[in-house]
Amino acid sequence: MAYFDAASAAPLHPVARQALLASLDEGWADPARLYREGRRARLLLDAAREAAAEAVGCRADELVFTPSGTRAVHAGVAGALAGRRRVGRHLIVSAVEHSSVLHAAEVHETGGGALTQVPVARTGAVDPAAYAAALREDTALACLQSANHEVGTEQPVAEVADLCRAAGVPLLVDAAQSLGWGRVEGDWSLLAGSAHKWGGPSGVGLLVVRKGVRFAPQGPGDERESGRAPGFENLPAIVAAAASLRAVRAEAAAEAARLRELTERIRARVPALVPDVEVVGDPARRLPGIVTFSCLYVDGETLLHELDRAGFSVSSGSSCTSSTLTPSHVLKAMGVLTEGNVRVSLPPGTPAEAVERFLEVLPGTVAAVRERLGAPVATGTVRAAGPDLVVDALGRRCPIPVIELAKVIDDVPVGGTVRVLSDDEAARLDIPAWCEMRGQEYVGEEPAERGTAYLVRRTG
Amino acid sequence: MAYFDAASAAPLHPVARQALLASLDEGWADPARLYREGRRARLLLDAAREAAAEAVGCRADELVFTPSGTRAVHAGVAGALAGRRRVGRHLIVSAVEHSSVLHAAEVHETGGGALTQVPVARTGAVDPAAYAAALREDTALACLQSANHEVGTEQPVAEVADLCRAAGVPLLVDAAQSLGWGRVEGDWSLLAGSAHKWGGPSGVGLLVVRKGVRFAPQGPGDERESGRAPGFENLPAIVAAAASLRAVRAEAAAEAARLRELTERIRARVPALVPDVEVVGDPARRLPGIVTFSCLYVDGETLLHELDRAGFSVSSGSSCTSSTLTPSHVLKAMGVLTEGNVRVSLPPGTPAEAVERFLEVLPGTVAAVRERLGAPVATGTVRAAGPDLVVDALGRRCPIPVIELAKVIDDVPVGGTVRVLSDDEAARLDIPAWCEMRGQEYVGEEPAERGTAYLVRRTG
Repeated sequence: MAYFDAASAAPLHPVARQALLASLDEGWADPARLYREGRRARLLLDAAREAAAEAVGCRADELVFTPSGTRAVHAGVAGALAGRRRVGRHLIVSAVEHSSVLHAAEVHETGGGALTQVPVARTGAVDPAAYAAALREDTALACLQSANHEVGTEQPVAEVADLCRAAGVPLLVDAAQSLGWGRVEGDWSLLAGSAHKWGGPSGVGLLVVRKGVRFAPQGPGDERESGRAPGFENLPAIVAAAASLRAVRAEAAAEAARLRELTERIRARVPALVPDVEVVGDPARRLPGIVTFSCLYVDGETLLHELDRAGFSVSSGSSCTSSTLTPSHVLKAMGVLTEGNVRVSLPPGTPAEAVERFLEVLPGTVAAVRERLGAPVATGTVRAAGPDLVVDALGRRCPIPVIELAKVIDDVPVGGTVRVLSDDEAARLDIPAWCEMRGQEYVGEEPAERGTAYLVRRTG
Repeated sequence: MAYFDAASAAPLHPVARQALLASLDEGWADPARLYREGRRARLLLDAAREAAAEAVGCRADELVFTPSGTRAVHAGVAGALAGRRRVGRHLIVSAVEHSSVLHAAEVHETGGGALTQVPVARTGAVDPAAYAAALREDTALACLQSANHEVGTEQPVAEVADLCRAAGVPLLVDAAQSLGWGRVEGDWSLLAGSAHKWGGPSGVGLLVVRKGVRFAPQGPGDERESGRAPGFENLPAIVAAAASLRAVRAEAAAEAARLRELTERIRARVPALVPDVEVVGDPARRLPGIVTFSCLYVDGETLLHELDRAGFSVSSGSSCTSSTLTPSHVLKAMGVLTEGNVRVSLPPGTPAEAVERFLEVLPGTVAAVRERLGAPVATGTVRAAGPDLVVDALGRRCPIPVIELAKVIDDVPVGGTVRVLSDDEAARLDIPAWCEMRGQEYVGEEPAERGTAYLVRRTG
């Protein structure tokens, strides 16, 4: 059994468990009360805030605990936008932010606010110049993650923070994926984190608002957490969150080096072991434990299921693994292949043997899924056929449209075209991505009687 | 040491502790994931939902878990109001709701909505007829607590629910104080609860929205908890919350009888042991474990401090114990004395000896506080004085204005008046309450050069 999905939720760190148990007896009372049980709870809460602030690199009175990272982001975005309402209603986010940021941005847009999504390179990184270009007179807030949750790419936060600072615009950093590894560098204004991503318990997020940042909490509030996070404090979990953040930080440097080497093995060896694979994300500026790749002609859901049967828990940004049947917005923004997508995110402590076993199991698993789907095997023979060909993949889901395309590409002569009819959202991303991987020319798409027609020209 | 503030937060029930520990190992993964750790988490979440729904008396798919009771109320009020936006923007609440309901109502009013606060009787109970009278064509939602958190008075929820149902208006019940004791009877539409009030862990609330109720979640959402409570589920705590709700329910009938007898002792004996005390709240229709009384000529904060030193943890609705220096809105709405207020709320399992010891300690503690404040002692002698008298209590906080009034009332003849000048918010409530307790006539108030003048006529 190997759990390789730490980017979703890390198993509870032993220190978190210990702190949680200890504070169940000491930390259940209302920290706002003046009797002994309340004072004891208040001491625990204050100490947790001090510890978390020290780890983040902020003042204790700048940090509040929220019920989750998602709630921290929602409260942070809404409060910062409202605080600068007079400046304007323009919000900047990167195209690869976590859904919590994008959902907050959607609400802002629905409410009449303006939104700019900054695109990313094929590595998943934003260009600081693109943030600079997006800044306007009426920009109230900019958001940028410290590192991407799906591909591990680190963002140039310090550079973007400087640009924002120069323009007088606060930058909110979603640091959920990186906070366990270290402080977020640079002159950011707001920061959000999530304890269960660093081995803390669920039920705890944190929101930092630097002194001097205009902030107006939205929605009903109360007197708790500086009026920024209403509701009774989740105290034993808060204590465990703070304690585990200190603990993982103490181990971070050594563990980062170790995991980086393990993910480097996967990055290097998967393309050699499995044909038709695209490893995505920045090869150098990345989180230590995350590596993501996509496999042509593979149904992501089936692959995840087979890997689970083989004892590996991973996640995927393929459309078939999402409830909406749309591929990951991150992979989409990067313009990379989305079919057969696998994200491996190693929790601290992952033994090298587990990674080696994964590399042993993966090739056969992918091959079996491909065989079941009738994926093409390169034959090298060119069949005689007409100059143009239509593949009707209507009603078929990812990866079938690409498989059908690959099967017939050799049936047209060089210079001939294949027209793939598809009504699957993933085809829009994966047919161009296939062309890029295969060195074929992607001509473009056009509306068809049903679905969309994707035009591919054989170039070799 | 006796903790008598269960209405703020109950100590963790042993079953909650046990369930929390067990699910720390099984319930940390993302229940939305399909691999084994995710499936295991999903099973735990589903089972907890079934158990909680059974205890509440609803369908599992009507119940979502939120990060706290406060968040459940906020989400429930906002979602129900938005769901019936087309009907109108009128909201009804009782004047004695929990602050979470009142804060949600404030936000609604600030946003342009209409609000009716239904008053309560001196017992703290609403009159169903007053709800019926408040219902309008454009009423989108009505809210009523199942029982009051400060005085324990049970509300006529079933009757009000019927009236609302007949008018086609959904009723949201804040059941935070009563859910551990039993289901909320009646045909309500929405319900909110809070685990740490019944001995569950902090970090868990629940929101029930009956099928057929129009509901539009507000703010950014995600795919979790039916789109009604965004953010990673606080799973181990949810499991513990559901398990402990079942456990406290199993013990509820016997424990309710036992605690009711103990609070009855306090209700009956405090007025006999301590002079000038008003026991507040409905003597019969009330929660088993809560009893509240106010002591004339006593500073609430000092009294709490002295009781804490004597080993008793209680809370108070006196103005001096609130950060805003205003008395509890509940006591205010009831029109009862707010000075020297003490709420005793017994956690299940409180031994009779602890209550007896409290009754032993209380009289001396109150007497000492009164002596320190120079409170009047009834002398029975009538001093000769003019027909009218002015007491300048400007700049003096509760309970000083009432103490000064009581000191001089015998200095005016029967029929003469005392004019008390005060700028303390509590005086507005406590001077009329003192008149009622003392059988003197409260004439009324008028603006003074500084503060307010309260007129009292000596009648005996």
